[in-house]
Amino acid sequence: MRDIVVVGAAETKFGKLEGSFREIAVEAGQAAMQDAGVSKAAIEALYLGTFSPGTFIHQEHPAPLVASMLGLEHVPTTRTENACASGSTAFLQGIMAVAAGMYETVLVVGAEKMTTTPIEETTQILAEAADWESETLAGATFPSLFALMARRHMHQYGTTRAHLSAVAIKNHYNAVRNPYAQFHKEITEADIEKSAMIADPLTLYDCSPVTDGAAAVVVTTGERARDMAGRPVRVLGFGQSSDSLSLLRREDMTSLVAARKASERAYKMAGVGPRDVSFAEVHDCFTIAEIIATEDLGFFRPGEGGPCVLAGETALDGRIPVNPSGGLKGKGHPVGATGVSQIVESVFQLRGQAGDRQVRNAEIGLTHNVGGSGATCVVTLLGKAA
Amino acid sequence: MRDIVVVGAAETKFGKLEGSFREIAVEAGQAAMQDAGVSKAAIEALYLGTFSPGTFIHQEHPAPLVASMLGLEHVPTTRTENACASGSTAFLQGIMAVAAGMYETVLVVGAEKMTTTPIEETTQILAEAADWESETLAGATFPSLFALMARRHMHQYGTTRAHLSAVAIKNHYNAVRNPYAQFHKEITEADIEKSAMIADPLTLYDCSPVTDGAAAVVVTTGERARDMAGRPVRVLGFGQSSDSLSLLRREDMTSLVAARKASERAYKMAGVGPRDVSFAEVHDCFTIAEIIATEDLGFFRPGEGGPCVLAGETALDGRIPVNPSGGLKGKGHPVGATGVSQIVESVFQLRGQAGDRQVRNAEIGLTHNVGGSGATCVVTLLGKAA
Repeated sequence: MRDIVVVGAAETKFGKLEGSFREIAVEAGQAAMQDAGVSKAAIEALYLGTFSPGTFIHQEHPAPLVASMLGLEHVPTTRTENACASGSTAFLQGIMAVAAGMYETVLVVGAEKMTTTPIEETTQILAEAADWESETLAGATFPSLFALMARRHMHQYGTTRAHLSAVAIKNHYNAVRNPYAQFHKEITEADIEKSAMIADPLTLYDCSPVTDGAAAVVVTTGERARDMAGRPVRVLGFGQSSDSLSLLRREDMTSLVAARKASERAYKMAGVGPRDVSFAEVHDCFTIAEIIATEDLGFFRPGEGGPCVLAGETALDGRIPVNPSGGLKGKGHPVGATGVSQIVESVFQLRGQAGDRQVRNAEIGLTHNVGGSGATCVVTLLGKAA
Repeated sequence: MRDIVVVGAAETKFGKLEGSFREIAVEAGQAAMQDAGVSKAAIEALYLGTFSPGTFIHQEHPAPLVASMLGLEHVPTTRTENACASGSTAFLQGIMAVAAGMYETVLVVGAEKMTTTPIEETTQILAEAADWESETLAGATFPSLFALMARRHMHQYGTTRAHLSAVAIKNHYNAVRNPYAQFHKEITEADIEKSAMIADPLTLYDCSPVTDGAAAVVVTTGERARDMAGRPVRVLGFGQSSDSLSLLRREDMTSLVAARKASERAYKMAGVGPRDVSFAEVHDCFTIAEIIATEDLGFFRPGEGGPCVLAGETALDGRIPVNPSGGLKGKGHPVGATGVSQIVESVFQLRGQAGDRQVRNAEIGLTHNVGGSGATCVVTLLGKAA
């Protein structure tokens, strides 16, 4: 495959934003092109990851809308959707189109506008990413599905409340150091104890928030990047896998097969293993999801994810920093933007631009973006350019 | 680029179907694999084009759902959405992934389930593919947008009611000869005169219907296809382009710039021109759209599309048969399935399997799939394998 790089990366502030969907998508896209040092004329295609603009803001067919508002006249535009992994799915399509030689330089944008929708509707819209017939119609929502996983993980491995809390506390700590994050507030065990129970054992602080936001990257070849001002980061490998949409059809609730397979493919393509990874941005939609992710990705053995986060091994200064950005929990989770934002954070880290949350000796970054309760997983490995 | 072929093609009957979204998608996918003579194990990825399952049937994240129901365990799955061009967008991503060397063989499915939604809601859902802020909120629907194009085309070129009617009459005639078509009923000028006015000058018979349906193709390399039972058809070229989502931001309403640019790219890649095309499946969501398509694709000069269809030049036995399948008007328009169904019909025609609607000397087929009022266009050129 051709040598593929990310040469520009940017994101909006995450949170409850004034800007509309189209405005924040354009803001991120323009900033990424500026970071890359490329003009609009250099962009040959747009890939847009977004989950459900049809229900959130009554706007389907968003890809040509964003392209034309960015001034990318008549470029091919593609929207991808894979629930919360919509953004990384767009990134992969962009990579493959460049790898195929169809385009030299493409813009990948992820965006979601969620906060203008009443919160009861938001939970319902999100639940449409589960299996409508066997889960959603039966009353299941994502907090309840991940609560089932948490209960099972606790039963099988002895994972505790303190382990879950350690994820939330760490990610809020990191988010305070991320100017793009939704939450700039450290939390304590006491805060979590006082917080509302959402789906036992998951409390409010175990759940990622509802967020507006957009993120964008410019993807090109290593050769082309030499003529661009942006500092390139190499795509070392990527992998994607799927599973049954419905949790009840899976053999095990304490691990995501799609995450294991996606990471195996990415490691194989990159020719590296879990021990080579300097830091990881993982899909902590709920605290239990981060614990499971660190096991699925091979950082820790099954059942060790909880004790390891509590021991500080995934802290900013730990052995393998996880979610230096603050993750979905602290940075926020604008669904379609999340996967692209993980790439953006990895670029910042690998360039040494991550300020107070900079990971030391960042050589290889991993991203892990999950759709639904694990029916989709995309893993990428990015590395410093030689 | 690698030599890419379509080695399997199939579709469900189009119309008001008993089967659910997932059932019809699985039916088409299985039939395409059977037509290709490949087992599930040979399929390395799934691309699913569907417009708005979130609003139609409350099911987002449909790609892994369809894959797992097809028994394609843990393959990478991607949903694409580009309004009515969602299906051809999926086809292009599948082609590019194989061209990139990521996969050898992929399954592309297009599907939509529309008839279980109340018709008032359906019109609203479809209108979300227009620009919500400048069109949909102002009361515009797709019949009204295409009516504006028709009025302008009539004003500028003298296109008449008889020209529009000739499109509908021809496509119903062809659909009678297509066992997969929704309508098996020829119509006359008298039927059209009696029919309800929808958006002046477009009557009921100028509009494509609301339809359930699914279509699927197996994409692989020419080399791999030699070991498969299915008769391959070559992908000679393809092109995609975009435009502003909103009609009011375009300079001209009598032509789609995206269609002209997409076809230029496809012709260039294939090294052929409009005169080399044996037949075309074009996006006749409204009768005026077919007239404009035949001009944008270079079959006729601007303003000649109307007189030429009336003169029979695009009939099954004409100089350049257009929509031998019956098109969206006669075959039906299950939004996400349409683009893939155009590929399926082209495969049938190029293999000589089109029965009573077979085009003579079918050597090269063109497909033209439009999203919205022309914000997306995908054109492909398929040819007989050597």
